[in-house]
Amino acid sequence: MANELYRLTASEVAAKVRSGQVTIEEYARSLLSRIEARDPVVKAWAYLDPERVLAEARRLDQVPPEERGPLHGVAIGVKDVIYTKDMPTQFNSPLYAHDAPHVDAASIIILRRAGALLVGKTTTTEFAATTRGPATTNPHDPSRTPGGSSAGSGAAVADFQCPVALGTQTGGSMIRPGSFNGVYAFKPTWGAVSREGQKMYSLTFDTLGVFARGVADLELMAHVFALEDDDDNEATTTATDFQVQGARFAVCKTMVWPHAGPGTVGALERAVELLRAQGANVEEISFPESLADLPKWHATVLDAEGRAAFLSEYRAGKDSIADLLVGHVENRGKTSHAEHLKAFDSIAAARPMVDAMLGKYAAVLVPSVPDEAPEGIEWTGNAAFNVIWTALHTPVVNVPGFKGERGMPVGVSLVAPRYRDRHLLRVSKQVGEIFEAEGGWKPSN
Amino acid sequence: MANELYRLTASEVAAKVRSGQVTIEEYARSLLSRIEARDPVVKAWAYLDPERVLAEARRLDQVPPEERGPLHGVAIGVKDVIYTKDMPTQFNSPLYAHDAPHVDAASIIILRRAGALLVGKTTTTEFAATTRGPATTNPHDPSRTPGGSSAGSGAAVADFQCPVALGTQTGGSMIRPGSFNGVYAFKPTWGAVSREGQKMYSLTFDTLGVFARGVADLELMAHVFALEDDDDNEATTTATDFQVQGARFAVCKTMVWPHAGPGTVGALERAVELLRAQGANVEEISFPESLADLPKWHATVLDAEGRAAFLSEYRAGKDSIADLLVGHVENRGKTSHAEHLKAFDSIAAARPMVDAMLGKYAAVLVPSVPDEAPEGIEWTGNAAFNVIWTALHTPVVNVPGFKGERGMPVGVSLVAPRYRDRHLLRVSKQVGEIFEAEGGWKPSN
Repeated sequence: MANELYRLTASEVAAKVRSGQVTIEEYARSLLSRIEARDPVVKAWAYLDPERVLAEARRLDQVPPEERGPLHGVAIGVKDVIYTKDMPTQFNSPLYAHDAPHVDAASIIILRRAGALLVGKTTTTEFAATTRGPATTNPHDPSRTPGGSSAGSGAAVADFQCPVALGTQTGGSMIRPGSFNGVYAFKPTWGAVSREGQKMYSLTFDTLGVFARGVADLELMAHVFALEDDDDNEATTTATDFQVQGARFAVCKTMVWPHAGPGTVGALERAVELLRAQGANVEEISFPESLADLPKWHATVLDAEGRAAFLSEYRAGKDSIADLLVGHVENRGKTSHAEHLKAFDSIAAARPMVDAMLGKYAAVLVPSVPDEAPEGIEWTGNAAFNVIWTALHTPVVNVPGFKGERGMPVGVSLVAPRYRDRHLLRVSKQVGEIFEAEGGWKPSN
Repeated sequence: MANELYRLTASEVAAKVRSGQVTIEEYARSLLSRIEARDPVVKAWAYLDPERVLAEARRLDQVPPEERGPLHGVAIGVKDVIYTKDMPTQFNSPLYAHDAPHVDAASIIILRRAGALLVGKTTTTEFAATTRGPATTNPHDPSRTPGGSSAGSGAAVADFQCPVALGTQTGGSMIRPGSFNGVYAFKPTWGAVSREGQKMYSLTFDTLGVFARGVADLELMAHVFALEDDDDNEATTTATDFQVQGARFAVCKTMVWPHAGPGTVGALERAVELLRAQGANVEEISFPESLADLPKWHATVLDAEGRAAFLSEYRAGKDSIADLLVGHVENRGKTSHAEHLKAFDSIAAARPMVDAMLGKYAAVLVPSVPDEAPEGIEWTGNAAFNVIWTALHTPVVNVPGFKGERGMPVGVSLVAPRYRDRHLLRVSKQVGEIFEAEGGWKPSN
């Protein structure tokens, strides 16, 4: 039925457009009616012009088959900290309300060339830097936060308003909304995808990422962004299947495990049980004591890098930016360069150590969030479990599949060494199917 | 005389404007006549609209004194890889010829707020990434290169077409044109100044920098960009004088010393002599053997990061970008992620080691370039001596003051540990005065 086209995954849309089963305009109309019906509650969009979407859809319908890319006609939401030349970029900041940049981010140039239908700009916390939520609600319970800072992207994908959306992560801004909204979230290895044209907070941590309702769509996006592991031949990547049976996994509760509530404790236990039931070996590992300060090092570097990052906004109008950011620029935390460099260098030294630790396993299971999405939309939640992996630059996939005590989604993260992105996606696909089948939560419901 | 206003340094202009001795329009007219006279030979500008400059000057003349910043009326050139919303940014690439971004870089927002008069966009090699020169010539000998990639910024400052210009360095793109054109070039600590809105090549290496004809101007810019050392109180920074007499220096020929020609060998020898004659202690130090591969690690990381950085331009039009960049994207060098990470992690481990090595001295003297600017403008020269310090994130100042066998300028670099930028500027000021007085080259001639 045409009016259910909005439920399709990116891979399904791409196939139906390719075979001529649907026009991009039909598909766009279905999405727009879904958005029209749901937007009053979910409020996932910072900017969306239905006429522009339809005009783009009609333009894409006219592109001859030989000029089409792998995402031809696939609807994608774009977090409003990523420059788009035909849609205003405002960072949830009044400073940019009438002064939107006119340029495309590198990621947007790549998506347009691949044929994507850019739907609109999704909501974010201010500059993707604060935990003060936009008006967006969790599509599974409007009294709860969808998480942040990629609030709108996580919510829109979960709510079938677009199959794929771009987000960013500096602390926990991909994985947390992934878990809270019950969808897949993929933070690739730092540096593997260009972050050009994406608002800077921390050069060392900021990473572009992707939300989707299935791993096949993450793989499609990884292909478009030319991610390739050392042992991959791009042509055979999707063909190489991974088997859970007999594979070696680990679970790592991390040094911030005391933050875990019953939802996450239960999800991680159940995840281990399910993998063991499928014939996997699952060991428990922990960080060496020498890395106990990783979360603190992340906070120190973030504070120091935020000092340089927000100087221009501070000069342009310090009364118009969040107090957190004023505090960075004024170095209210009195972070010395010596402390900053010690943290920066210690994280750098930790990366190869942790790669070696992770490299012994098909993937390592770690908590995505403390628990289900909290009540209220003012606060987007705690990133304690995410900052570790953001600092370490490793790829992370939030795999949904579980529920907490209130029936809201809870995910589990899989991590792998740096630049094992395609491998991690292959593992996440198999693991995700198991979790979705037996964990109690399906992103496609 | 009004027609010699173009010779003023930034600090002098700021003072004369402040005291009402000159209007910004008079000053702008003097610069424009200098540019008109010299541009046919030097060709430092990728974009310059005299009417726009005069309109800006008149607008700045109308700003009431209480709303003026520390750079009020100071003319600044901007390398054409840095976004400016009122002047097209084209990266010396045909891809952007009719598609200039409409947004200001963070550095530009900061300069505008400080009252700078942005003169125009200075020439660059393609995306500041290649060594294929633009049409710009060395102002001291039009048959020679001004260096690159910040070709126009180095030449314009040397030629009195503006007192200060922004450049960028990923390999040797600040220090090399600084030396070839006989001016000061300051590459601050990586991350100390926001690089937002500056074309990306390597997240790990790209650094914004400043050219000027004297250290006082570099200090003015450091103040505007809020650079502050741990032991500085911003209020007293410029008051704390450094004395060469009795200070401890070192000279480090580096692992690429075989690249040094007679100009650099002579400059470094003479520099040591002059400092000793002023009562400084100068030791010779060398890198530990374990860091012998630093230049190779830089090349490996650059190749890997260039692969992600230029994917968007490759997809937008691979026939329109330099073969070097196509090679990065296609990974023609077959750099594996494992090699990339080994180089990335090895550089990271080297940074605190080298900081400790440098920290024993007031500053360490190192070569800026192999020799004088080579003949021809096709090739912008060799960055062998610069990539080491770019990789290590340390601040570097090219101090001019010497001449090579052909009478062309040769500089010497001073380096210090990360985030010792203000200290390094204070040392460079004293050292520069000695070199200028007795080394044979003055940037103000």
